[in-house]
Amino acid sequence: MANTVKDLGEFALIDRLLAAIHRRLDGIQPPFGSRIVVDAGDDAAAWRADNITQLATTDTMVEGVHFFRSTTSWRDLGWKAMVSNVSDIAAMGGLPIHALVTLGMPPDTSVSAIDDLYAGMIDAAQEYKFRIIGGDIVRSPVTFITVALTGATDEPPLLRSAARPNDLVAATCWLGSSAAGLRLLQHRRSVPQDIFNRLADAHHRPKACVLEGRILAKQGVRCAMDVSDGLVDDLSKLCKASGVSARIDASHLPIEPALQAAFPEDYTALALVGGEDYGLIFTAAPGLMERIVHLLPPPTAVIGSIIINSPGKVTVVDASGRDITPAHGGWDHYR
Amino acid sequence: MANTVKDLGEFALIDRLLAAIHRRLDGIQPPFGSRIVVDAGDDAAAWRADNITQLATTDTMVEGVHFFRSTTSWRDLGWKAMVSNVSDIAAMGGLPIHALVTLGMPPDTSVSAIDDLYAGMIDAAQEYKFRIIGGDIVRSPVTFITVALTGATDEPPLLRSAARPNDLVAATCWLGSSAAGLRLLQHRRSVPQDIFNRLADAHHRPKACVLEGRILAKQGVRCAMDVSDGLVDDLSKLCKASGVSARIDASHLPIEPALQAAFPEDYTALALVGGEDYGLIFTAAPGLMERIVHLLPPPTAVIGSIIINSPGKVTVVDASGRDITPAHGGWDHYR
Repeated sequence: MANTVKDLGEFALIDRLLAAIHRRLDGIQPPFGSRIVVDAGDDAAAWRADNITQLATTDTMVEGVHFFRSTTSWRDLGWKAMVSNVSDIAAMGGLPIHALVTLGMPPDTSVSAIDDLYAGMIDAAQEYKFRIIGGDIVRSPVTFITVALTGATDEPPLLRSAARPNDLVAATCWLGSSAAGLRLLQHRRSVPQDIFNRLADAHHRPKACVLEGRILAKQGVRCAMDVSDGLVDDLSKLCKASGVSARIDASHLPIEPALQAAFPEDYTALALVGGEDYGLIFTAAPGLMERIVHLLPPPTAVIGSIIINSPGKVTVVDASGRDITPAHGGWDHYR
Repeated sequence: MANTVKDLGEFALIDRLLAAIHRRLDGIQPPFGSRIVVDAGDDAAAWRADNITQLATTDTMVEGVHFFRSTTSWRDLGWKAMVSNVSDIAAMGGLPIHALVTLGMPPDTSVSAIDDLYAGMIDAAQEYKFRIIGGDIVRSPVTFITVALTGATDEPPLLRSAARPNDLVAATCWLGSSAAGLRLLQHRRSVPQDIFNRLADAHHRPKACVLEGRILAKQGVRCAMDVSDGLVDDLSKLCKASGVSARIDASHLPIEPALQAAFPEDYTALALVGGEDYGLIFTAAPGLMERIVHLLPPPTAVIGSIIINSPGKVTVVDASGRDITPAHGGWDHYR
């Protein structure tokens, strides 16, 4: 029994992974009439799809930088590597179609680790209904996973640059839960098991808001972005791209009860700067926002508004309207 | 003046690279009426293109594994990282359209190194007329470059699995020159400067056979593959995918005079197993091959034939028909 990548060899490993992909994903019908002409195994994959707008994104996770083996299983890592890309497609209002997966790894990596990693990627492909159509496995002294994901939409793509003054700002997911889960995994502290499990799950198995992105695009929203680096950071990027500023009402943030219970003093800070929640933030004029916010699944909530000020500036106020914006980098230690 | 990636910061670095991309590539019209809807800078890039077959491929280069800084400049590295992907698209008979670039690098990497790397990638994008529409720059203890490239074709894609018994086999490029160039760069030996320059250039600036791939597809060829791992290795993969075997006539290999002059005893071995030449190998029935081989630019040559034998087996014969096939792995030390 070959236990490491080196033992098994590159070609046997590829055959093994292709078999797993076909076994679990062959029944998936890609959206918009897109159809595979040449599947994984040739120089490049080939597909056809007409009358749609195509999307492509890529995202990488490097061991010791974006993940630690001590807090993330291989299977969860595969899930997250995919979902971070699916979330980018969702943030354009699109549906994912095809993934290319590059694995860099030392030759003594165990085959069961790769099987588990792929199982997590295939979990995500099943959940979000896309295909894995190719990739590359290379020797590397450090483990990394790069996913390039294509997608498509039949609506105008949702842009970061389309926020307008007086728009309201909303978020579609619990904020801060993933960062709280990571803190609990790194520094085990005394919290009830169900709270630990819930927050660890938020960190290990974040969801991409594909359905929400589709609803936004169909309802005429033009501006959205996914929250991967933390709310304040990502909203600042959105504002910079749109040449506007934003004010967040901290008392309106969607913060789940488990997070409040586990971190009664820090939950607002975690919700403002914690990363990897992978929900969407979007903006819309008040009339449109009022109609749409009720169409979206919970915990979607209006959290602030777009104002005219220095492009990229994000101000945070509490329930009484008092400015509680941290000084530059003031909450960085929560990352 | 910020000299390292850490000094400059991620966002300034991205702005700098986007500026270089726009400056040099904005005028490029993608093929088949494909048009950008959302350019680099949002969650994902977006484009439209109808009535074509789309292609996607990815390829990675890791420092110390696929390249060494002692023998490859940053600019040549950027060129090669792109061309290895363009070659995969060419091997499907397609034209490249959009690249996503992921750079993994230590924080103390110099900004001028990244500028040079991107300059080489943009050189390739200008040469082969495609756009760079996004990417990701991540911190990593080891430098790596992953490119995901989309392409398209208006003909049936050229497959590895379409070789048939009695087809002739041809190659579209000089074989062995890149491997010879690498040997000269690693172990400087006494060869005339013009020969050194020519072979080093073959190693540093390989060409992708995009035009050749288009001609093949237009003329009705169905089976092609690019030569990246070495002729015998890659032809064996093609034969395995097609369930056939091949015989190569070593005396018909396209071997350039500079290679023969620099390695008078080893040039045949280098042509058979040297990698990174990035030409195409293709097969066609004799009548079709006779017509097509004259349409292709030099040094295209018929080098052998497809026969019925164990799938994947590649036999090499000399000018007198004597079997000179190396024992398994017998020429591995030439890699």
